[in-house]
Amino acid sequence: MKSSINARWKGNMSFEAEVGNHKIILDADESVGGQNLGVRPKPLMLVALAGCTGMDVVSILKKMKVNFDDLNIRVEGNLTDENPKHYNKMKVIYEFTGKDLPLEKIQKAVTLSEEKYCGVRATYMQAMDLSSEIIIIDK
Amino acid sequence: MKSSINARWKGNMSFEAEVGNHKIILDADESVGGQNLGVRPKPLMLVALAGCTGMDVVSILKKMKVNFDDLNIRVEGNLTDENPKHYNKMKVIYEFTGKDLPLEKIQKAVTLSEEKYCGVRATYMQAMDLSSEIIIIDK
Repeated sequence: MKSSINARWKGNMSFEAEVGNHKIILDADESVGGQNLGVRPKPLMLVALAGCTGMDVVSILKKMKVNFDDLNIRVEGNLTDENPKHYNKMKVIYEFTGKDLPLEKIQKAVTLSEEKYCGVRATYMQAMDLSSEIIIIDK
Repeated sequence: MKSSINARWKGNMSFEAEVGNHKIILDADESVGGQNLGVRPKPLMLVALAGCTGMDVVSILKKMKVNFDDLNIRVEGNLTDENPKHYNKMKVIYEFTGKDLPLEKIQKAVTLSEEKYCGVRATYMQAMDLSSEIIIIDK
């Protein structure tokens, strides 16, 4: 199956990407000639992973009838020192908030995403070290 | 060097990601329980590549004093048939518009991005086949 996006140059270092019927503005930092009108490209790789595994996990937990109040997914990426600087490591931290949340079921949902469902992870795992952590805030 | 993003669950399948001081809404398609409030996660991988190489190329061409009127970067991704469906191939199509554009210099800028500068590509090349094409529209 094919999918595609278009990114149109908007002057200086900025681009406007069309993704389906949504738009994303990309721009560089002021220090390298940009105007910070939008996101840097590289962290979008972290966002792609967060969204992919996040949707898996909420969908699996819904099927398991596990309810939670809040979920924040933090993705930390480590960039190489050598050029071109690129991610050689990422860590996904799932922080759930809720009352008496079942850690075992949450762990199972995360593992299913990691091993079976998340297509972004399936690409990244060929190119870097990936790890994860689950934090549960009981309230 | 480390970088990180946060993606907060906004109900159903949607997440709001914070990337620096910018926000991106992620959501799934209606067919899988989403509401299409924002982009799908996987195509963000294509956007990351377009932005990364796009900023390289405009920056290099500026140094080369090559002026163009317009630039559209299309990234096509091929997803595997097997699950988890993930990209196993991407093609970057650089479409420049301008008067008497110097193909050789543009080719050099693209090659420099591909081989030396683009950190997103440096990750993806470890996990899939990458190709590119330059189209010049003279006007």
